[in-house]
Amino acid sequence: MSLVLYDYLPSGNGYKCRLVLKALGMPYELRQMDIVAGATRTPEFLAINPNGKIPVLVVPGRGPLAESHAIISYLAEGSRLVPADPFDRALMWQWMCFEQYQLEPGVGTVRFWLKSLKKEPEDFGERYAERFQRGADALGVLDRGLAGREWLVGDAVTLADIALFAYTHVADEGGYRLSDYPAISAWIARFKQLPWYAPITEP
Amino acid sequence: MSLVLYDYLPSGNGYKCRLVLKALGMPYELRQMDIVAGATRTPEFLAINPNGKIPVLVVPGRGPLAESHAIISYLAEGSRLVPADPFDRALMWQWMCFEQYQLEPGVGTVRFWLKSLKKEPEDFGERYAERFQRGADALGVLDRGLAGREWLVGDAVTLADIALFAYTHVADEGGYRLSDYPAISAWIARFKQLPWYAPITEP
Repeated sequence: MSLVLYDYLPSGNGYKCRLVLKALGMPYELRQMDIVAGATRTPEFLAINPNGKIPVLVVPGRGPLAESHAIISYLAEGSRLVPADPFDRALMWQWMCFEQYQLEPGVGTVRFWLKSLKKEPEDFGERYAERFQRGADALGVLDRGLAGREWLVGDAVTLADIALFAYTHVADEGGYRLSDYPAISAWIARFKQLPWYAPITEP
Repeated sequence: MSLVLYDYLPSGNGYKCRLVLKALGMPYELRQMDIVAGATRTPEFLAINPNGKIPVLVVPGRGPLAESHAIISYLAEGSRLVPADPFDRALMWQWMCFEQYQLEPGVGTVRFWLKSLKKEPEDFGERYAERFQRGADALGVLDRGLAGREWLVGDAVTLADIALFAYTHVADEGGYRLSDYPAISAWIARFKQLPWYAPITEP
């Protein structure tokens, strides 16, 4: 039995898991769920994740694990993608928590509304402006954090870069202009040169 | 030099750090910041955390660390508050990620609006209803997750319980009725019996 990943290819949260599996050369079975069509709201799926969300990793002999950052830290524990130094590891988590609390709810949400739900900003009224601004603020924090650095923590790519790259590199699909963020733009170009890089919607 | 914690006593995110420091008997210096009066927006504080938020832990010889879950996992690494089993540790992170993405933005935000900013639901229009519902959904997921269990992961209290307890146990201050959630109510009563329990606003 191999690892099973329940996922939706346009999902940045799912993409984080696929990138880590690819970087570490871990075989897995991909089960694609059409979240827009309600595939994560069926009784069968809710039995796997009562929270009704992808990604979910099913680990043979243990069971399902939800939340992208719980999944990638489980997969990558002890690997080169996690700093050996405890304080650097904490800085990695600092960036990952920032992503889930500030960047994804902004950048990820407006992209989901426009690209996956195929709606217009006007359909969301003042909620669009609030979420868009939250994302813009987060991109500003990320751009300043990357200034003068190759990667977010230490000298090598870590889970923090993978976690932040996922929604940031497709921010233009939510209406952001990445050319406004020079350090982010350079980091995205660097990330795309990694030997295990693959586009977000590639299974 | 000791650990320094920049904090605001009513903050659930800060409370998580104080509970872990107390549970592990770690001495630290508390620096209280009045976030409502703008204390985290000064140039001095932004030099410590460019993201302008508490809590921040300053580690002697290393520097500042932001994000409550990055802080508590750094403090508690290798302690009894973190499961030794890798999959259980991942389940701990699953609950902590859920807290930051779903519970805190609902329960924590409406409590902050009503209690710290001393505003009324009407002041936030449809944003209040959206955030309140998000919190109610999260409390439902937590209540189902706690059904039949003493603690969230394994058989002992972990960082997951501390992280989820922080905003959940004061949810009534945001307008929720905790008596609607029987498993949560029993878990809160259990948590308050822990020898290192202290009320949220106790320095």
